[in-house]
Amino acid sequence: MAGAATVDKALDVLFHLHEAGVAVGLTEIGRALDLPKSSCHRLLQSLVDREVVSRDEHGRYRPGLALLSLGIGAQRGEPVIAAARPILEEEARALGETVFLVGLRHDRLRVLDKVEGPGFLRAAPGVGDVVPAPPTAAGKLYAIFGPSMAATGEVRFCDGEAETIRRRGYALNRDAWIEGLSVLGVPVWQATGAGAKDLVAVMALAAASPRFDQLGESEVAGRLLASAARAGERLGGVRLGAGR
Amino acid sequence: MAGAATVDKALDVLFHLHEAGVAVGLTEIGRALDLPKSSCHRLLQSLVDREVVSRDEHGRYRPGLALLSLGIGAQRGEPVIAAARPILEEEARALGETVFLVGLRHDRLRVLDKVEGPGFLRAAPGVGDVVPAPPTAAGKLYAIFGPSMAATGEVRFCDGEAETIRRRGYALNRDAWIEGLSVLGVPVWQATGAGAKDLVAVMALAAASPRFDQLGESEVAGRLLASAARAGERLGGVRLGAGR
Repeated sequence: MAGAATVDKALDVLFHLHEAGVAVGLTEIGRALDLPKSSCHRLLQSLVDREVVSRDEHGRYRPGLALLSLGIGAQRGEPVIAAARPILEEEARALGETVFLVGLRHDRLRVLDKVEGPGFLRAAPGVGDVVPAPPTAAGKLYAIFGPSMAATGEVRFCDGEAETIRRRGYALNRDAWIEGLSVLGVPVWQATGAGAKDLVAVMALAAASPRFDQLGESEVAGRLLASAARAGERLGGVRLGAGR
Repeated sequence: MAGAATVDKALDVLFHLHEAGVAVGLTEIGRALDLPKSSCHRLLQSLVDREVVSRDEHGRYRPGLALLSLGIGAQRGEPVIAAARPILEEEARALGETVFLVGLRHDRLRVLDKVEGPGFLRAAPGVGDVVPAPPTAAGKLYAIFGPSMAATGEVRFCDGEAETIRRRGYALNRDAWIEGLSVLGVPVWQATGAGAKDLVAVMALAAASPRFDQLGESEVAGRLLASAARAGERLGGVRLGAGR
């Protein structure tokens, strides 16, 4: 193996360990990825040296904790996450339910941030996870307002649904993504000058459907629309390079 | 470049972007790491394909959000974090200050988890960060009770301090790590059978020193010792391979 192919293999190993969810032995990794044991061992050694992979007392491998500081660094580098974070915390506290920030990255919808409410039923997707476009409120908003259709091209709307979303400024899904869960999402806009604006993320509240009905659709929508507007203002009107 | 050296270079690129904290251009990365622009570009391409690195609209690079799900996966795979998480949340709420879980990994002390209290002054180290052994409460506990002296060999104690820590079962540092900050740490033990036990993490409360005095050393110590014992019980007495 030489050059970029080796890096690809090392990344295969890393993602394989991530997906396994439990510590995995060398032989098993080699077999799963069709890699000679010796190459596999060399790749792992480089990854272990930097704590990107950790080796336990039984000689099994799993993702290492250096990934955690790298990942949290990646999150901090996203201006929209920094701008929205205190607002997500406020809303999760005020509404008592889980609030998400979801963004289109590399043609996929990713959970950029999440603040859990104290509610018993908590929406499963974790920070950094990819969520599907079609049934989600975020997918609907990106399909209508988003910059790219690649990931959201499969989103289908009922009669007049897209028009309603456009008019109200928010999207709703009930039980379509996860049974028993209602999600209301609103766009976070960033001004790009001359009255134009970009959709930079979706802020969404997820709650068990009975609890969502108690809160009330219009109450939730009103709060989140105001909060997303504040996040957009904190982000500022001039689009700096990401990472600034 | 061939084999493991390429993986090392790819990891150099990744950690360089992490440490930069802002988006960095190709020329700059090549110069900083003494890499030809073409090799550097090939490495980055592999990393970008998997969202381990992201490329912004100006062609600059920074750590990508896939690292976030990898990192959170690594965190979930640590049994002591899973066992301690609800207890950290309880303590942060009850005491109103930030509670840390710190562990010795790869001969360094890492923040395994952290739950922030609502207090104004919040201790800076983030989840995944390395903390120094010498002045910290965690370093003192590992130096006395820990399995390895490699990272903690430099920890120095005042007259009788080690004996006091051993007797009381907790370590304290006031203003030694961060000016104005007091940290009280207690060991989290895991039973290994036949009455033996391993130090698997340190649970610590960090608060502004005046606030720490209000809470009271003995009150904080009593709460954390009981909480760490509960975390140890949740972890169970049989040491499974990490990642299980």
